[in-house]
Amino acid sequence: MLATFSGSRPVTVAAVQFEPIVGEHARNLAAIDRLVRAAKAGGADIVVLPELADSGYNFADAEEVAALAGTVPGGPSADALCRLATDLSVYIVSGIAERDDDRFYNGAMICGPQGFIGKYRKLHLWNNEHRFFAKGDLGLPVFDLPFGRVGIAVCYDGWFPETFRELALAGAELVCVPTNWVPMAGAQDGAEPMANILHKAAAHSNGLFIACADRIGTERGQRFVGHSLIVGPQGWPVAGPASADREEILLATFDLSSVAKTRTLNSFNHLLGDRRADVYG
Amino acid sequence: MLATFSGSRPVTVAAVQFEPIVGEHARNLAAIDRLVRAAKAGGADIVVLPELADSGYNFADAEEVAALAGTVPGGPSADALCRLATDLSVYIVSGIAERDDDRFYNGAMICGPQGFIGKYRKLHLWNNEHRFFAKGDLGLPVFDLPFGRVGIAVCYDGWFPETFRELALAGAELVCVPTNWVPMAGAQDGAEPMANILHKAAAHSNGLFIACADRIGTERGQRFVGHSLIVGPQGWPVAGPASADREEILLATFDLSSVAKTRTLNSFNHLLGDRRADVYG
Repeated sequence: MLATFSGSRPVTVAAVQFEPIVGEHARNLAAIDRLVRAAKAGGADIVVLPELADSGYNFADAEEVAALAGTVPGGPSADALCRLATDLSVYIVSGIAERDDDRFYNGAMICGPQGFIGKYRKLHLWNNEHRFFAKGDLGLPVFDLPFGRVGIAVCYDGWFPETFRELALAGAELVCVPTNWVPMAGAQDGAEPMANILHKAAAHSNGLFIACADRIGTERGQRFVGHSLIVGPQGWPVAGPASADREEILLATFDLSSVAKTRTLNSFNHLLGDRRADVYG
Repeated sequence: MLATFSGSRPVTVAAVQFEPIVGEHARNLAAIDRLVRAAKAGGADIVVLPELADSGYNFADAEEVAALAGTVPGGPSADALCRLATDLSVYIVSGIAERDDDRFYNGAMICGPQGFIGKYRKLHLWNNEHRFFAKGDLGLPVFDLPFGRVGIAVCYDGWFPETFRELALAGAELVCVPTNWVPMAGAQDGAEPMANILHKAAAHSNGLFIACADRIGTERGQRFVGHSLIVGPQGWPVAGPASADREEILLATFDLSSVAKTRTLNSFNHLLGDRRADVYG
């Protein structure tokens, strides 16, 4: 049963850009604690953290993943995030290294004032992630929060327009994107990262708010590009893009009831209603 | 039976930006003749013209559309384009007002040295086009030319990521986009048109070359944004964007065999192969 929303639904969203350190679990959780408290102090109702924010990204081997991953909920990272959300009465969407028996997932979880709410497992794995993680098997869930319907996508998921389309068709108004964007081949000097272009296009094509929280730093030779941003449903940034290399908290306040209005383009056109599902394969 | 391409396949693509005048059929065909000849002189193997290049766009009423539209092939515009392609030994993709018995389509056609090759009918109609045109009923065809496989999309089709995805899955390497882009709500001062962002994202997500030929000018109060561009398969412009308001011919030479290489991102990832069709609805 999906919630029916009505009236104005303002929300303040934070996208937290920071540098997790691979293997330094306690240090990463301490950074998360500090940054989520700062975002809440800045007015955030919901805080988005990067992909694999608890574990770091560039694993040496499967043993390292096994040592860092925990169950969701129940594991140390998941529990710490749930406690933080409850303590602060805030919603948190975070990337997390998930263990499920003998399988591992590049996961994300959402928790709030009431504790654990739900989870997602990255559908589209990038490069060496295939060595460590199983492909996501939970589809593209959406979560009804008091201010609106929220979906989750992780990094390379955003390279697939289907991700945002499916979430929009499932009623998502805000998509939270924990990410670890890496440089793309062929990038032009001084140009914005292609990741920013992709998410502006996805927001515009679907009439979605999209909040991307990227990491920064260089980890075992892998550079990340920063440039976290929050995009409005017309495709233009409402906060950011952030810097390439500094810890930052982006904050934006908007009304999720604007999504429905944005999708109605004129008396003939609706962004989702105009799809030609009779033609698409 | 699809062609199998091998080896290097260089092609020079022209995107022609000009101002058709609504109702001035002979004048529009004369402009097309002049501009296609100039593009050919510049080395073009294939020339892309704007949406409804023969008729203009902002029709007063259905009678005006009926007076301007012709059959494809066989009508005056289609025949003129075919003759021009044959005379110059060049491929042309042009928007065209199509009549089919008592129905009208916002159409596009492709012709070449051998004459008429095929046609497309805009799938996603924008605003008042619904008053004049039937929705496209020819799917998203692809055409095998000597230098590669080519698809067609028209203007608002590009707002639907499905358009480029379907064409890429059907083997398209180059998508030609006759268009009449209008300003989008919420555009930020000085920012590039959202249309450019959408096509950069589509090219990157699908590993496609995309050649967009936009019109310029203001027609009966409707402004068009220009900014024609040709995008490479990594999502970056290889020609343009053009100006907002000047007649221009963009030219770019590239090798369509690069598309397959671009789509293979690393030893684990392929842009199309990584789709999670098991999850998408």
